[in-house]
Amino acid sequence: MREIDIRNQRIRIRRIEGGSEYSEAYDHLMVATGARPICPDVPGIDADGIFGINGLQSAIDIQSELDLTDAKQAVVVGGGYIGLEMAEAMALRGIKVALVEKSSEVMNTLDDDMAAMVSQTLEEGGVSLHRNEGLQAFERGKGRVAAVITDQRRLAADIVILGLGVQPNTELAAEAGIPLGINNSIKVNDRMETGIPGIWSAGDCVQSYHLVSRKPFYIPLGTVANRQGRVAGINIGGGHAVFPGVMGTAMVKVFDLGIARTGLQEDEIKALGWEYATAKIDSHHRTGYYPDAGRISVKLLAQKGNARLLGAQIVGALDGVKRIDTVATALHADFTVERLIDLDLSYAPPFSPVWDPIQIAARQLIKKV
Amino acid sequence: MREIDIRNQRIRIRRIEGGSEYSEAYDHLMVATGARPICPDVPGIDADGIFGINGLQSAIDIQSELDLTDAKQAVVVGGGYIGLEMAEAMALRGIKVALVEKSSEVMNTLDDDMAAMVSQTLEEGGVSLHRNEGLQAFERGKGRVAAVITDQRRLAADIVILGLGVQPNTELAAEAGIPLGINNSIKVNDRMETGIPGIWSAGDCVQSYHLVSRKPFYIPLGTVANRQGRVAGINIGGGHAVFPGVMGTAMVKVFDLGIARTGLQEDEIKALGWEYATAKIDSHHRTGYYPDAGRISVKLLAQKGNARLLGAQIVGALDGVKRIDTVATALHADFTVERLIDLDLSYAPPFSPVWDPIQIAARQLIKKV
Repeated sequence: MREIDIRNQRIRIRRIEGGSEYSEAYDHLMVATGARPICPDVPGIDADGIFGINGLQSAIDIQSELDLTDAKQAVVVGGGYIGLEMAEAMALRGIKVALVEKSSEVMNTLDDDMAAMVSQTLEEGGVSLHRNEGLQAFERGKGRVAAVITDQRRLAADIVILGLGVQPNTELAAEAGIPLGINNSIKVNDRMETGIPGIWSAGDCVQSYHLVSRKPFYIPLGTVANRQGRVAGINIGGGHAVFPGVMGTAMVKVFDLGIARTGLQEDEIKALGWEYATAKIDSHHRTGYYPDAGRISVKLLAQKGNARLLGAQIVGALDGVKRIDTVATALHADFTVERLIDLDLSYAPPFSPVWDPIQIAARQLIKKV
Repeated sequence: MREIDIRNQRIRIRRIEGGSEYSEAYDHLMVATGARPICPDVPGIDADGIFGINGLQSAIDIQSELDLTDAKQAVVVGGGYIGLEMAEAMALRGIKVALVEKSSEVMNTLDDDMAAMVSQTLEEGGVSLHRNEGLQAFERGKGRVAAVITDQRRLAADIVILGLGVQPNTELAAEAGIPLGINNSIKVNDRMETGIPGIWSAGDCVQSYHLVSRKPFYIPLGTVANRQGRVAGINIGGGHAVFPGVMGTAMVKVFDLGIARTGLQEDEIKALGWEYATAKIDSHHRTGYYPDAGRISVKLLAQKGNARLLGAQIVGALDGVKRIDTVATALHADFTVERLIDLDLSYAPPFSPVWDPIQIAARQLIKKV
């Protein structure tokens, strides 16, 4: 039999110790197979010293490797959340870090103008950036990785971290006949049930629904996985819960910089063919005259014609970027830019300017939509 | 003539220098007379050394007084925002501070269970609290205030700060025949026009509309005043803007404690006669295992039966309480507790637990509504 036999509602189980197999019947089956790091198919990829990031064990393995090999230089391939966090962590350990990113900017979940601030922070933190460079191969030496070859240069490396994103582990589901969607993620309805009744799924292996674009979306994030798991669990237990979808909300710390985003960014809006306007403002996370007022930049995006809010990006003082949640909540409510201006948000000098920076941006944006 | 002659659309103006008077015609008149500190009618109130807080000049005057008199002990009467901020400021200057509050707790814009945390912080900061004590008189000595007499004790005082709230300056408006509302504040429509066409008002002298209780509300706060002024200005200039109302959102810092609230609190909901439920949770403002994760407590309130969100209070780590804006935005959207759970909020360990503390509270509250 197959691992999952959907007709007879049975699964095949193999004991890791000993390797013996048996089968088990199910009424409800939860497929929570997650995702794995994308491994590029280039020469030398199987050399020792090249690491993808996949859970806590990866961090433990990398830490051991750094200790054992006394690594002096690292190359990070990919400038997304994982790549940036790893670049920071190793730079703070005193390792020389180079980062290779094939796009024009790191953080492709930000527009380039906002991502440029992240790049500046990385460079100030000692990370050498190589943007617009494609990975071509890994060079070996002394039985392990010795260098990363891009289309423009050779970067010596004692260790390499892959931050090229993840792909859903859905081979098992596909083989069983469970319908897949974008990126080969598992299609689920808003109760987290797959196309096969009685089979449920949640987490990094499933397709989500984007509430702003109103299209399928693949977003492997811990928050989303956690919330989807709750909904699946309630439904499997006989209750009723729905997971309406995602906003693409995410955040990351890079050195002393906070980075947060929600909704759609320019590339995504262009792909939808929607007319849009943007406003970008510089402000502070506390009142400007207050001690330790850090700078924050806020970019807002809205649809032209109806002034529907589409997204936001905030980069700046660590303790100032969680206010992205105000926009995420406004997106859930399908607010216009005007309604963002109307919000009765909190203010006191130690916490915010009188007009929250989000509303300062909204007041600029309202003139353009 | 009166100061404001609404029939002939003229105002009387007196030059401060020289005292000469003349009148001026208007098409639109903006009444922005603000508010003044409430001064209790008790013996000794006119003694030197007793200060209300009314703008920047009050702070300058008090600072001079503290320098000149080398004040050693201060009494603050009233435990609202102003009273607490003044108590903190003087305690940090090394002055012995006692605070008298007639209610069972300071911060009557919080429920007592949340306000108790504020009281604890005040006491840890060296402020002596005298709750459930009514002011009776001020005692004089050497030509100035020497003590505050409550219904329970005598508190020696070199200086006294009144933090008893403010009352709107609306005598001018009332005399002109402009209709007043609650607390004698000026009634305005959502364009900030008073009951007299062509006369506008905004700020601490006007009545607001509470979007949760759907009743008139008086809330003299800088943010609200600023936003109302913008709306009045646009309308006077021939444009169209509305100020839909307020949520009662406010925040304050007391020593290292952040305090934020929005919507309705228990007393207000009881006064409306609505059935409600509450949930209070303790969490952290960053992921618990992250360095410098500070504690925050979140209390959520919702209506029973329809699960309509009614309000929230957050007390804890300074950089954790601005997330009150998530609830303020949800209140603007008239969200249920379930919709708060559905929100795609931002997460990374340096910024938040996986489930934002607001959603942790919402998950408790959903079981009760």
